[in-house]
Amino acid sequence: MSFRITSCHRPLAAAVALALFSGLPVGAQAQESVEDRLSALEQQLAEVEPHARGEEGFSFNTYARSGLLLNNEGKSAPGGPYLTPAGSVGGAVGRLGNEPDTYLEAILNYKTVADNGTKAHYRLMIADSTTSSNDWTSDDGALNVRQAYVEFSNLAGFTGIFENASIWAGKRFDRDNFDIHWLDSDFVFLAGTGAGLYDVTFSDSVRSNFSLYGRSFLDFPSDPDTTEGTSDTDNLILTANNYFGNVQWMINGMSAADNDERVVGGVTEAAETGVNTMLAYHGDSFFGVSDGNFKVALLHGQGLGAEVKNIGADGNLYEDAVSTRVAVYGTTRLSDSWRLAPMIMAETSKDRYLDGDEYQWLTFNTRLANELGANFEMQYEASWQVMDLDTQGYEGRADVDGDYARFTIAPTFKPQVGGFWNRPEIRMFASYSTWDDELNRYDGGDALGQEDFGGSQWTFGTQMEIWF
Amino acid sequence: MSFRITSCHRPLAAAVALALFSGLPVGAQAQESVEDRLSALEQQLAEVEPHARGEEGFSFNTYARSGLLLNNEGKSAPGGPYLTPAGSVGGAVGRLGNEPDTYLEAILNYKTVADNGTKAHYRLMIADSTTSSNDWTSDDGALNVRQAYVEFSNLAGFTGIFENASIWAGKRFDRDNFDIHWLDSDFVFLAGTGAGLYDVTFSDSVRSNFSLYGRSFLDFPSDPDTTEGTSDTDNLILTANNYFGNVQWMINGMSAADNDERVVGGVTEAAETGVNTMLAYHGDSFFGVSDGNFKVALLHGQGLGAEVKNIGADGNLYEDAVSTRVAVYGTTRLSDSWRLAPMIMAETSKDRYLDGDEYQWLTFNTRLANELGANFEMQYEASWQVMDLDTQGYEGRADVDGDYARFTIAPTFKPQVGGFWNRPEIRMFASYSTWDDELNRYDGGDALGQEDFGGSQWTFGTQMEIWF
Amino acid sequence: MSFRITSCHRPLAAAVALALFSGLPVGAQAQESVEDRLSALEQQLAEVEPHARGEEGFSFNTYARSGLLLNNEGKSAPGGPYLTPAGSVGGAVGRLGNEPDTYLEAILNYKTVADNGTKAHYRLMIADSTTSSNDWTSDDGALNVRQAYVEFSNLAGFTGIFENASIWAGKRFDRDNFDIHWLDSDFVFLAGTGAGLYDVTFSDSVRSNFSLYGRSFLDFPSDPDTTEGTSDTDNLILTANNYFGNVQWMINGMSAADNDERVVGGVTEAAETGVNTMLAYHGDSFFGVSDGNFKVALLHGQGLGAEVKNIGADGNLYEDAVSTRVAVYGTTRLSDSWRLAPMIMAETSKDRYLDGDEYQWLTFNTRLANELGANFEMQYEASWQVMDLDTQGYEGRADVDGDYARFTIAPTFKPQVGGFWNRPEIRMFASYSTWDDELNRYDGGDALGQEDFGGSQWTFGTQMEIWF
Repeated sequence: MSFRITSCHRPLAAAVALALFSGLPVGAQAQESVEDRLSALEQQLAEVEPHARGEEGFSFNTYARSGLLLNNEGKSAPGGPYLTPAGSVGGAVGRLGNEPDTYLEAILNYKTVADNGTKAHYRLMIADSTTSSNDWTSDDGALNVRQAYVEFSNLAGFTGIFENASIWAGKRFDRDNFDIHWLDSDFVFLAGTGAGLYDVTFSDSVRSNFSLYGRSFLDFPSDPDTTEGTSDTDNLILTANNYFGNVQWMINGMSAADNDERVVGGVTEAAETGVNTMLAYHGDSFFGVSDGNFKVALLHGQGLGAEVKNIGADGNLYEDAVSTRVAVYGTTRLSDSWRLAPMIMAETSKDRYLDGDEYQWLTFNTRLANELGANFEMQYEASWQVMDLDTQGYEGRADVDGDYARFTIAPTFKPQVGGFWNRPEIRMFASYSTWDDELNRYDGGDALGQEDFGGSQWTFGTQMEIWF
Repeated sequence: MSFRITSCHRPLAAAVALALFSGLPVGAQAQESVEDRLSALEQQLAEVEPHARGEEGFSFNTYARSGLLLNNEGKSAPGGPYLTPAGSVGGAVGRLGNEPDTYLEAILNYKTVADNGTKAHYRLMIADSTTSSNDWTSDDGALNVRQAYVEFSNLAGFTGIFENASIWAGKRFDRDNFDIHWLDSDFVFLAGTGAGLYDVTFSDSVRSNFSLYGRSFLDFPSDPDTTEGTSDTDNLILTANNYFGNVQWMINGMSAADNDERVVGGVTEAAETGVNTMLAYHGDSFFGVSDGNFKVALLHGQGLGAEVKNIGADGNLYEDAVSTRVAVYGTTRLSDSWRLAPMIMAETSKDRYLDGDEYQWLTFNTRLANELGANFEMQYEASWQVMDLDTQGYEGRADVDGDYARFTIAPTFKPQVGGFWNRPEIRMFASYSTWDDELNRYDGGDALGQEDFGGSQWTFGTQMEIWF
Repeated sequence: MSFRITSCHRPLAAAVALALFSGLPVGAQAQESVEDRLSALEQQLAEVEPHARGEEGFSFNTYARSGLLLNNEGKSAPGGPYLTPAGSVGGAVGRLGNEPDTYLEAILNYKTVADNGTKAHYRLMIADSTTSSNDWTSDDGALNVRQAYVEFSNLAGFTGIFENASIWAGKRFDRDNFDIHWLDSDFVFLAGTGAGLYDVTFSDSVRSNFSLYGRSFLDFPSDPDTTEGTSDTDNLILTANNYFGNVQWMINGMSAADNDERVVGGVTEAAETGVNTMLAYHGDSFFGVSDGNFKVALLHGQGLGAEVKNIGADGNLYEDAVSTRVAVYGTTRLSDSWRLAPMIMAETSKDRYLDGDEYQWLTFNTRLANELGANFEMQYEASWQVMDLDTQGYEGRADVDGDYARFTIAPTFKPQVGGFWNRPEIRMFASYSTWDDELNRYDGGDALGQEDFGGSQWTFGTQMEIWF
């Protein structure tokens, strides 16, 4: 009998052939070798795979948007969700077709697992923001590091209520921040440099997070006579987030030593301490009436805590400042091809920067999407905001009382339609906005009333948005 | 009969051994398991492999150069391909041994493939440029974001002439830019923020690309009386690239509303619109006479289009500005160890910035390489430029008429010799340049005539260059 | 006999089954196919694995620290290892609990192996430094590129004493720099832009490295009369490192043309050239008495070489400047759970910046760690520095003579305890420092004597530190 092994250059195959003709049982020896090689491959691949999946070693995350926002003369139009007078105190309007910038976050992660099972995650975020359309923006850009922290989890030495806990230190965005995407507004946004402890787990449904964040209050005026002296301090924020099932209760206390030496509006009565709190519900349906989700939150703060979203970030707040905000949004499907996402956010604050001032605003916004193909959907956004701002002349701002409305239509391409959070998207858009002339008087660095931006506006543009 | 399985810890091997002695056919059961494991491995590896290859997930690209350029006293010498008076209007000379900077582009990509097959590619480019040799350059560097865009291809919902099309939006270098490497000059360089559609395919040999780019004209003087007012506008560029086999026809139209309010040379007659066009041929031999490649292009532009390379980037152009440029280069082998790459670029423009000005220049350059070992080659570059610039006093520049010559010899190490585009390279170089004294008078921010740089020069240095 | 192949969709399994029943020997044909698939998998995996391991393609490295350093009022405290008067001339004290900043290095590598075996390694380092605790630091940060170089090794064309050599060019930290971590001080730190040759190997125990580095001396005052003129030059540094077993002998010569035109203290007598040298021993035990390591070095420099650590980085040095430094540290275990790392560094220099000045300082530091669990250890650091600085009024600095002491206790979490170099770490710390009042008078940009920092101090904080 003639038998030839072709294209076999390995000892293994020779051994198999040998075994076949030697009368020894086939397989044991050969399978052992195959087995060894399979095991080796499986083990190697088990080591390699977490790297490809981003579970170990380096991984890359991003948020980015970039596009053109033009008026009907083909020149850049002002824009952004905070473009109205209310924007200066947190009152965002819708962002679709309303963003003039290139903003991006490049997030570089590095993850390791120690022999004892403890996981470590280093995260570096570099961010940039510019309204220049040019490719070379070394003079106009703002490249900077927003996060650089380490977080440990699965700690081998942690037991009991700390068994699932993780600890972190460095500069970061707090893990529990969450947002209303269409408004480019977080419910709460807490960030700074510090350390913390997450997921102290008391029971299946009760867990708590505790952190200390520092923020720098830099170069503020501190001499009411000369208005030339400046000073610095740190705002230290103790934060706790407590989860009871779907309910979240956040409480923040903060203190900035000597911030009462800060000169605001000619007087030194800035807040030195503050507290704020948020009660939130994270719903896993659309208000119980259909599939989707909803989130609702009530926020209240005093003193340095009267900036209820950007926790501890505003050092100009008056010692008696009080703010209350409510925010709610939900997403659902109206049909196989229509999606709906309405939201409301409103705030009232008084004695905010100066004794006797009063700020009130309410934003209503709805995002609507109509899926029309594998890669295409029409998106619509309507936004309406009403405001009554009594500034007492703070920073030269005039009192205003009026409303603002915007409607946008945006033909949108995406790799796969299917949800509000599917990205990337490539959009074109046309937007019509109109507002009360009175709002042009505010003059608080907001867009309304700027040159060529005094009344009703058509704007046009194109944009990409991505996150992963 | 005695039989022992050694170093076999898996059930599989035991099952095989069992089968052998039980009289059951060997292989079916065992092979099934081996088959399962092989299939699992093959599938896992098929998921992992595209990540290692950079076809999915994160990947990294780079262009970078860094080195020293010194005069014969050991001090930094001015340099760069645009160092002559003609450089101020695009007339580059050779770059070998003529670059004083560290310039780099770090390109972070992230690619995904949706379930429906649509591909998405996010690209972020961070770039830096500095002439400081120090390691800490926070004051001298220029770190900025030059690209941040998303491109979709293989779109599931695209058919017909759009079946192979891709779409993009964000900030980017246009995909169809191409260059003469030895001159550090693109034939065309179009970049900005916008959106576009690539590869609309009409037939096997005919396809077209269409894009809209915006560029920012920032802070230009706009009041002829006080010369203190500044203004801004956007230059919107519509571009189309049409390919007919090896022939490329590009056409650009652009408009910058109110750019005619710009003050240039004391008058407000800057162009508000422009057009330009390029007819190019991409040859896949060395002008038909030997293996290699060649590219030739004729460019013409008017108004804002009279800057025919950096499309739409120069807002100072006069309303009647006209430019015509021709460029050609090729590469070939002279023998197994000698490579040759000659090129010519020339431009004439008039009424460019001021009524009546006239700029003419021509550059001839040849790069020659002699491969002398696995990792070593000698590189030579000769460059000659003649120019006749009649500026009408624009920006205080004097009229000049003369020529400039440079010759460089560069012993070069590389991982593997073999072609003009093999990188990285590590070079040493010595360069001799000489020019007409008259060119020192131009004073347009160019190097010629600067302190210690008034006549013939020897320069020396070392440099790395890499791209991947 | 009934026989069914289940869940087998590949021709392979069918072939096996066929072979079984055809009477042909089992295995040969089947094993060949399994063999082919195994071989293919092994080959694919061999290509993929180096990417996951960072041996080919992209990889990511980091050094980073970020934290809060607060005084007992909750405000940021000055800090850093160089916070004393002696710090202005290199006299660092301990860093534990003494760092107020976020400092990070993001290192992006790309490695390739050519067909001929030559390896290339591109390294880009982006670094940032800020003392702001805020997340948005575009005004306070310092993002810049510190390294961008290419290094070739395993060169196919190199033989003899160059067989193991590698060559590099670009901007980099020299490969032979080494440090005392607890002091945040290198023994030598050489960095700049240039090129070099590493690992010229003369015998098993003798090898040498040669490099040329340029550094930029930028915008220094160069007109003693008006004090308005500024000038630039380059400091070119030739460096050689020679290793004889555990002994390292480094020698640096440097020259900065026209640096003698620099005005320092009203006169133009700055050094134009310099030399320095280091003799070091890298011990692989704790001074021969126990397991661990130690390093000891004697450094001496003159003229521009009188800055013996930051080689060639200080252009203000006087033409007759002379410095001598000695540094020694070691690490060992005192027991299973205690680790010890003592060090001493001292320097004397005279005629450093002005004729007749004299600087002397000595730092003693000990780091002690007590491992108390899988993830936890207590760290202690004691630092004592004595200094006698006679400045001759250089840069308005007063003469000072006194000492400084600091003690820090730092509860520390890490993924796995086990050594001084195990990172990441998350620490809390409390630190007490005290110093002679006289040191407050120095006024050389150092922290001592600043507002709220005039005497003994308690400081507190938290920090993460990581490298990989």
